[in-house]
Amino acid sequence: MKLASLKSGRDGRLIVVSDDLSSYLEVDDIIPTLQMALENWENVEPKLRDRYASLCSDPKATAKKFDATLCAAPLPRAYHWVDGSVYLNHMKLVRQSRGAKMPDSFLEEPLVYQGGSDILIGAREPILADDESWGIDLEAEIAVITDDVPAGTSANEAPQHIKLVLIANDISLRNLIPGELSKGFGFYQSKPPTSFSPVAVTPDALGDAWDGTKLHGAVNVSINGQKLGNPDAGTDMYFDFAQLIEHVTKTRPLGSGTIIGSGTISNEDRSRGSCCLAEVRTIETIETGSPKTPYMSFGDKVAIDMFDAFGNSIFGKIEQVVQRR
Amino acid sequence: MKLASLKSGRDGRLIVVSDDLSSYLEVDDIIPTLQMALENWENVEPKLRDRYASLCSDPKATAKKFDATLCAAPLPRAYHWVDGSVYLNHMKLVRQSRGAKMPDSFLEEPLVYQGGSDILIGAREPILADDESWGIDLEAEIAVITDDVPAGTSANEAPQHIKLVLIANDISLRNLIPGELSKGFGFYQSKPPTSFSPVAVTPDALGDAWDGTKLHGAVNVSINGQKLGNPDAGTDMYFDFAQLIEHVTKTRPLGSGTIIGSGTISNEDRSRGSCCLAEVRTIETIETGSPKTPYMSFGDKVAIDMFDAFGNSIFGKIEQVVQRR
Repeated sequence: MKLASLKSGRDGRLIVVSDDLSSYLEVDDIIPTLQMALENWENVEPKLRDRYASLCSDPKATAKKFDATLCAAPLPRAYHWVDGSVYLNHMKLVRQSRGAKMPDSFLEEPLVYQGGSDILIGAREPILADDESWGIDLEAEIAVITDDVPAGTSANEAPQHIKLVLIANDISLRNLIPGELSKGFGFYQSKPPTSFSPVAVTPDALGDAWDGTKLHGAVNVSINGQKLGNPDAGTDMYFDFAQLIEHVTKTRPLGSGTIIGSGTISNEDRSRGSCCLAEVRTIETIETGSPKTPYMSFGDKVAIDMFDAFGNSIFGKIEQVVQRR
Repeated sequence: MKLASLKSGRDGRLIVVSDDLSSYLEVDDIIPTLQMALENWENVEPKLRDRYASLCSDPKATAKKFDATLCAAPLPRAYHWVDGSVYLNHMKLVRQSRGAKMPDSFLEEPLVYQGGSDILIGAREPILADDESWGIDLEAEIAVITDDVPAGTSANEAPQHIKLVLIANDISLRNLIPGELSKGFGFYQSKPPTSFSPVAVTPDALGDAWDGTKLHGAVNVSINGQKLGNPDAGTDMYFDFAQLIEHVTKTRPLGSGTIIGSGTISNEDRSRGSCCLAEVRTIETIETGSPKTPYMSFGDKVAIDMFDAFGNSIFGKIEQVVQRR
């Protein structure tokens, strides 16, 4: 089943979207928002699946044309957005670029930070910044959305709590990071609102691409139409989403609608490119002594997309233009 | 005006509470939850004030007896909880205790971290932990709740966005902090759910104690009935709430219902004691070479309270017992 939220109020208006993202059906009579659906998932999911089945069996008769530009983020605001950094290749390279050392525990437990969740932006909304000198960068990631997860959930128990999978662009202001991290309390100003793919997908609808704890497949990232990378999200993911859930529930429960991110996808195989400019710049520095590729400028356009075996977009494309606020 | 949320569902049930916290009136006919009230503040506030006025003028005729044990946190979950550390005396002492250095920028801009907001706990709910060896500590703080605040809000424009003031107990797991902060991404496991005073108060109802950007008055903290401290919240607050708002909106807007904390209150005058055990232990280490006071044990009871000129509790007492989960 595929779900999206049309722009409407603070929480959007939930719809079910056809597998090929061509059409949608309203579900207002079942539940108005995705947040409410997640809070009542056991009860609501079968009804949403019935609606989805009727959409799939007869996409043209009753459905409306799906238009990703009318979508907010699947959760336009959330109570919890926690983002990991579980692709060690990315961790290694980006730390090298800012002269930071790898945490001693990087092989034993996932690294996470708590992100801003009160304002999450749609896949086609602009990336707003006051100043290009902030070092505006993208980060293509996989994310999952959970129901209520008790404190102390083990990695074995975790997969059942993953209700939806989607793509995130965890926008980062690179030049604000060193000053902020040197203070010791983590990111805040350096992480403006994150954007998400128009569509969130239930794990079963991902077929073999979802193995219960990881999503497999190439994540295609470009800037201004130029390919930046197409690494496989299932390759070199050192900690999976089940291990992330175990980590983030060690001392607290998660409320329904928690979004958990993987951190920037990165493969050891350099021919697969990168999912953020910081990594590109680090590789340039390693290879040539200095970074050549600038961070993003006003007017630049980022695109992030994943395709199924038939070449259809799975989650819909994230496509954002950087704009002066 | 004083507001509280009775325990009910995920978001509580908003009520108006009398100035002396003796009685309350329901407001379901106006708005069901505090989150919704904040989203529609301009429209809803006058109606809530009318209800509050009728409660104050005739507290016994129609009102019900207020009981803080029936209260959730004023916002039982929020989309944004950002906590500062703006009492430099505390920053200095606690860093000394964990062998960390003061950030270079500590006098130029506030230090903040993004806390978990999906589950916030009521003033009389237990502090749950699996293990005493985590180093369970309290942190008595002042917090404010805002409406929608645009990105780039200046300290001058900020005070108008402060709709409510309350007290927080930002529970910290001290022995998890060094490992977590050494990874560079800030707190996560070391900050389990925060608790809040039963009652949140509009700035005007605080009289002279609220100067537009700071709350003045002694915050009384005890453990098992033994006084830990009574520092003045308005003394030695190096950055005020307006400056905090300017800082946290530099690169992103705040959604309605954002809670901003001051960090542990701390006065330079040591006769005023401390608002957390980490500070007590640091002072012991400075004075005697080693910490004497342990962190909290299962069964310990924390109390935090502030009183008006008549000796009435302003926000209601936070009173929590540490329990094994």
